[in-house]
Amino acid sequence: MSRLTSENKIIQFLKNRYHSKNPLLARGIGDDAAVIRPMHADEYWVITTDMLAEEIDFRRDWITPRRLGCKSIAVNLSDLAAMGARPRFFTVSLAVPSGISERWILEFHDGLTESGCAEGAQLIGGDLSRSESGIVISVTALGESLNRKVLYRSGGRAGDLLYVTGTLGRSAAGLKLLQNGRKHARTHPQREAIQAHQMPIPRCEAGVWLAQCGLVRCMMDLSDGLSADLPRMCAASRIGAEIYIADLPIFRESRLWGCDPVALALDGGEDFELLFAVPVSKSALFEKLYPAKYPKITKIGKMTRDVGKVWAIGPDKRRNLLRERGFDHFRSSRA
Amino acid sequence: MSRLTSENKIIQFLKNRYHSKNPLLARGIGDDAAVIRPMHADEYWVITTDMLAEEIDFRRDWITPRRLGCKSIAVNLSDLAAMGARPRFFTVSLAVPSGISERWILEFHDGLTESGCAEGAQLIGGDLSRSESGIVISVTALGESLNRKVLYRSGGRAGDLLYVTGTLGRSAAGLKLLQNGRKHARTHPQREAIQAHQMPIPRCEAGVWLAQCGLVRCMMDLSDGLSADLPRMCAASRIGAEIYIADLPIFRESRLWGCDPVALALDGGEDFELLFAVPVSKSALFEKLYPAKYPKITKIGKMTRDVGKVWAIGPDKRRNLLRERGFDHFRSSRA
Repeated sequence: MSRLTSENKIIQFLKNRYHSKNPLLARGIGDDAAVIRPMHADEYWVITTDMLAEEIDFRRDWITPRRLGCKSIAVNLSDLAAMGARPRFFTVSLAVPSGISERWILEFHDGLTESGCAEGAQLIGGDLSRSESGIVISVTALGESLNRKVLYRSGGRAGDLLYVTGTLGRSAAGLKLLQNGRKHARTHPQREAIQAHQMPIPRCEAGVWLAQCGLVRCMMDLSDGLSADLPRMCAASRIGAEIYIADLPIFRESRLWGCDPVALALDGGEDFELLFAVPVSKSALFEKLYPAKYPKITKIGKMTRDVGKVWAIGPDKRRNLLRERGFDHFRSSRA
Repeated sequence: MSRLTSENKIIQFLKNRYHSKNPLLARGIGDDAAVIRPMHADEYWVITTDMLAEEIDFRRDWITPRRLGCKSIAVNLSDLAAMGARPRFFTVSLAVPSGISERWILEFHDGLTESGCAEGAQLIGGDLSRSESGIVISVTALGESLNRKVLYRSGGRAGDLLYVTGTLGRSAAGLKLLQNGRKHARTHPQREAIQAHQMPIPRCEAGVWLAQCGLVRCMMDLSDGLSADLPRMCAASRIGAEIYIADLPIFRESRLWGCDPVALALDGGEDFELLFAVPVSKSALFEKLYPAKYPKITKIGKMTRDVGKVWAIGPDKRRNLLRERGFDHFRSSRA
């Protein structure tokens, strides 16, 4: 790789490297702004933004720049998935301390664009800046919602059944390994957990299908953990919920390195699975229609009239109020 | 103000505080993403993002949170202005160290939304995060381009006349005062300079007019200084340029505190004025039509065939190659 010495050159390099034709894009990287050409006035555009800060959301010695790029875009695409929108574009702002090499910056962008591309999202602009302290990444992603079929957190009703995609607590189990100094996985479950933490796969295709199928009432993604996120969906829908601990799709293997899989499923963040509600009358049809090629879904509970209360029902039928122990940036740090 | 203790509560507070009806917005702050409802398929949407990092782009003890909010949105709206797009929406990601109060966060958002509102842009989402180091702000702004009339940096041709809006070097003169420890202006020019540095006014209305009038060939905003930005426009248009030092709209008053107004006009960044080119055959009509209510415009030079070269012609007619001394994040820090 040639030496890149200034912002201009790095941007020119990125522009050449990530250039691609796209009928929805009139102008990409390299001008004052990017220009989008919406095709149909019957579509909605969905926009989301997320910031990752070093030492809070990640540690440089725990993750490669490429994987960090993957994660930075994944957390945003997961928000689009949660609305049922198809990812189209993203921008990235990156602030780096002077110790960071150009090679690091380019590998980070490679991770970003590879993972973006895999879900149909193209890098169309950004900002590159020095930081006097740690690395800070801010990605903004834009998606398209066909026929204006967007799913919100609101819209759930008492009686609706609650489902999640995938497995819960796997990313937190991976974080635990990293925190214990295990950067290199020794077993398959360890590899799976670390990968879930470093390169979460946003549920974009499933999200679009769930929004388009017309059988789902409300949806969100699980970024801070079920115990933090489910109460948010209940608040938006002005209802309550109960979940059955025995039914949670936990990541049992994490017991092998001393974790409590149920606690991680409830309180571990960054699974980036989808949480959604289906009217009970449509649940049989829904389960029949849900395509097998998408991540497995699990029924974990139901919405209730008990406004603002979320109950966790144990295997012994004991009911406990679910306490919000999920991740809150203003209480603790994740890395 | 009540005490806000968690991210949830701060977001709820912001949601209530900045809620407003907008026919272009289906859903704003508070869900996984915001949802935009484009009205006509014959419009383009323009998107830009900019990051401000503490100690690089600003110093906390030199600027109030409200003014920092103003500046954070202004630098983005200036990019929209440079494309001729009308500002519509923006998102903000904010990472703050634990010493920052909730009051600071809210005042920052007040500055953001006030300045956004003044130009027609509404806050529709964001991310709030802790930082282990300094404050980092990333704003992404979306604008609408009527009838797809967008102005790019490319499109200039040899012979076109070069114009700028407003005054050049005023923001850098304000920065100089702050660097010299003068936080409170003593004279009117000092106040004007500090205000230009802390609360630049993006040239949004003029930018839209310039794009819609059909007489302008290319445009950009001056964020890093004429000596850094004009070569970028020349490179995008694959031509050269010459500018006349005696014609520059310099900020003479900065001499009063020891500045060289010409050097600041050339190399000082953050003026956020517009630089654009008009075909010589249309310049008389253009100057006649340009509305008096918008910032004054000044003819500063012309585009030439001398590809990649930008000449500065002194009052003595001496020609010097304009050296890129404008701001580059990868060479030096601004604060």
